[in-house]
Amino acid sequence: MDDDARRQVLRRIAIEGGAPAASTLTWLSQCSFHPPLVMIGIQTNSLVHEAVAKSGAVAVNFLAADQKDIAERFFKPPAFESGRLHGLSFEPGPMTGSPLLLDLPAWIETRVAERVERGDHDVFVCEVVGAGIRRPDFAPLLLAMTPWTYGG
Amino acid sequence: MDDDARRQVLRRIAIEGGAPAASTLTWLSQCSFHPPLVMIGIQTNSLVHEAVAKSGAVAVNFLAADQKDIAERFFKPPAFESGRLHGLSFEPGPMTGSPLLLDLPAWIETRVAERVERGDHDVFVCEVVGAGIRRPDFAPLLLAMTPWTYGG
Repeated sequence: MDDDARRQVLRRIAIEGGAPAASTLTWLSQCSFHPPLVMIGIQTNSLVHEAVAKSGAVAVNFLAADQKDIAERFFKPPAFESGRLHGLSFEPGPMTGSPLLLDLPAWIETRVAERVERGDHDVFVCEVVGAGIRRPDFAPLLLAMTPWTYGG
Repeated sequence: MDDDARRQVLRRIAIEGGAPAASTLTWLSQCSFHPPLVMIGIQTNSLVHEAVAKSGAVAVNFLAADQKDIAERFFKPPAFESGRLHGLSFEPGPMTGSPLLLDLPAWIETRVAERVERGDHDVFVCEVVGAGIRRPDFAPLLLAMTPWTYGG
């Protein structure tokens, strides 16, 4: 991979008992090419943690450079109202059912492979089982993420 | 933590049977505040992987904005000659003995808490047991890393 892949703003979405939970992520990195794996740190006492632990699946939605306002919205606790997440429409991911935000330019779907419980955040090591790009020419909010488009 | 912490160029150093091994890291993120933990993806068939697995300790040396040439040197296989790593002097870390590069502006020392073996890189979840800053005003090669200075 190139060096840029580690600098990213990410968004994570998960289903909790049918009610989607979503949050902006800051602690995420790829951690394997074959199979494609990512590692994600998720606060143990958060709704999103509960959702990921229950569902065993996480979708990561990537932000475009002009979507800083959306990142900020998702730093607040998950809000699921009128079928939207913080006011944004989504569709179920084809591989996991995890919500994919329609306004965001790219996503990956992952399944939890392993979980490490050592601190105030757990580490979820997740296999990338799907990926897609809605806007092929998008400029990512932080930088490029070539390896994240694997498997899509 | 602030958003900047995830964008970093890092350097990892470890001891292998007395001979230091060192490499530039790209897959690293903080993953807990309390205790302070980091997660690192390390290629399973690398010398550095062997060193970390054996020693159970890793020091991460941070690069300043004007040290891109050093980052490039450490993308090559570890070179330990005349008591130097790729030509750079180091000292043993006070907590772990892992080598700290004297020319680099800041470091953390960590001990491996857990290891996940799932892909072509292993995930090492490591507790930060020491930290130091040589140049308090340094501009990091990529961005700031406030939380990494915890525990120092």
